[in-house]
Amino acid sequence: MADRAFTSIDDFAALLRDLPGPDEAARAAAAARNDTLTKPPGALGRLEDLAIWYAGWRGQARPRLQAPQVLVFAGNHGVAARGVSAFPAEVTAQMVLNFEAGGAAINQLAEANGARLGVHALELDRPTADFTQGPAMDEAGFVAALATGWEAVDPGADLLVCGEMGIANTTSAAAIALALFGGEAADWVGRGTGVDDAGLALKRQVVEAGLEANPGARGGGIEALRCLGGRELAAMAGAILRARHLRIPVLLDGFICTAAASCLEVARPGALDHAVAGHVSAEAAHGALLEKLGKAPLLSLGLRLGEGSGGALAIGVLRSALACHSGMASFAEAGVSDG
Amino acid sequence: MADRAFTSIDDFAALLRDLPGPDEAARAAAAARNDTLTKPPGALGRLEDLAIWYAGWRGQARPRLQAPQVLVFAGNHGVAARGVSAFPAEVTAQMVLNFEAGGAAINQLAEANGARLGVHALELDRPTADFTQGPAMDEAGFVAALATGWEAVDPGADLLVCGEMGIANTTSAAAIALALFGGEAADWVGRGTGVDDAGLALKRQVVEAGLEANPGARGGGIEALRCLGGRELAAMAGAILRARHLRIPVLLDGFICTAAASCLEVARPGALDHAVAGHVSAEAAHGALLEKLGKAPLLSLGLRLGEGSGGALAIGVLRSALACHSGMASFAEAGVSDG
Repeated sequence: MADRAFTSIDDFAALLRDLPGPDEAARAAAAARNDTLTKPPGALGRLEDLAIWYAGWRGQARPRLQAPQVLVFAGNHGVAARGVSAFPAEVTAQMVLNFEAGGAAINQLAEANGARLGVHALELDRPTADFTQGPAMDEAGFVAALATGWEAVDPGADLLVCGEMGIANTTSAAAIALALFGGEAADWVGRGTGVDDAGLALKRQVVEAGLEANPGARGGGIEALRCLGGRELAAMAGAILRARHLRIPVLLDGFICTAAASCLEVARPGALDHAVAGHVSAEAAHGALLEKLGKAPLLSLGLRLGEGSGGALAIGVLRSALACHSGMASFAEAGVSDG
Repeated sequence: MADRAFTSIDDFAALLRDLPGPDEAARAAAAARNDTLTKPPGALGRLEDLAIWYAGWRGQARPRLQAPQVLVFAGNHGVAARGVSAFPAEVTAQMVLNFEAGGAAINQLAEANGARLGVHALELDRPTADFTQGPAMDEAGFVAALATGWEAVDPGADLLVCGEMGIANTTSAAAIALALFGGEAADWVGRGTGVDDAGLALKRQVVEAGLEANPGARGGGIEALRCLGGRELAAMAGAILRARHLRIPVLLDGFICTAAASCLEVARPGALDHAVAGHVSAEAAHGALLEKLGKAPLLSLGLRLGEGSGGALAIGVLRSALACHSGMASFAEAGVSDG
């Protein structure tokens, strides 16, 4: 393993301040190429925007998608003991075994979309602290989780999708969203993977208690992630920031992934410019969170699974966009009249 | 080539009356399997519905997508001489050469989504008659176009996407939609591949004139297709009906494909039960047409190209759905607690 890129929150915050942007020359070349292709202007809709965006980040006017990486991080949450999930906490570890055996949805989605899958379980036998009583993580634990994500990114990848597994983590994501963007707990709390009405009311109370117990989390991106997040959320944030430094574009997954990513954006506006929303999930708060980020999702298929599933599904759309952009003939090459 | 399955409109209408349904046992087996998979119930959203729908039509509880076929039909329209398109009619033939050379968007999208592409140009040097003066096709010409589509379907395919190329064919599709579903011409006329305000007004007049010149087209699915369609629209309808008889599921493409398909549905309710809307295009009338059909699109990415582009893009979503359905472990297999 390489030397850690950071060993403190201050170090991580410094890495978040000084961010590379896209290659504007490559972006402009891609936009110019797009205008020559054998289709009416704009007729490929968002596929055109996607290709130009991707070209800029990769610094190539005519890129192809060849090595997408999907990372799934798993963590356990102290707050799960409050009964906020329909599933027992043991399911997190059971699902990690399922990921490793190839039996989960994300295994199929990664394979079907030509991506390599990495699975990282973060100290599942040691849940984070119950955030209704104080911060979920101390600095050392938080930095270790950020670093797990940072180090999991393959520098040779040309796309990153982050996903997660963690019983109770929609509660954690709702608390983060409330801390970052305000409103009421009810605005950000949904049924997750299947709680009933009583469970929903309990989730709201737990989220409110989390904010009361962690007043420093309000409005502070990194501090919200430490106090209200879980290790898998911190790892996703670490991976997304690493991707930025490597100019690897990111497809965001669902509510929990987006909540973790939002901590970066709130701490440093523009931190998610290298990220596109892969989908919007059936968890209503996800759509609200994407609106706060100003990101329109590529897909809206009612998924509410996590694991990186919606992000992985969107890889196919991006691959298709790049295939059109980089493979189509120009009007001149094809001898087609351009109107 | 096989003997023609039909040689008259009456023969085609008979094939449209007597339609096979899905295999209910396979469908039920797929639904039962879906309930056992390692995810919360419903967490894969529309991917679950898609897999069960596909399983029913293919008669397999655990299907995979292995041989999707994309067919592009090209035709020229007499009504193009009215100036309803921003492009000259020569572009149809030029684009067919581009399809054959591999340079168009649909070539890239078919390849990126693992589909075989077939291109069929229908008498491009002999445009259909101008439908503002009477029927676009006589019976013999119409039946020949239907048969081209019918015969183009590979009986070994396990999915069909139909697309089209034909300068002025959004005008044809708008006239068909008006004939089938009523309303005003303005409800169904859009900018196609880029006409200006004056062009838009002209398209409306042309559509209204088409309905006046073809009173028999109103409300009659097959007759609307003959009177107001083009050869490429008739071919798509022929291919979609053949797919039904072969129990090959269909992903519909954009406005023109959907208008052609709607003629089957209006003539014989349920005729499109084997079809899912691959996408909704930026042409506003497409969304309205899908609502009339009760079909929710899989994708909404602002495409307005035709060629089968949106349908081909949706192949990746269907493949992912089937990969999850057929590849995931059950709770029992994976040893995961199911809540």
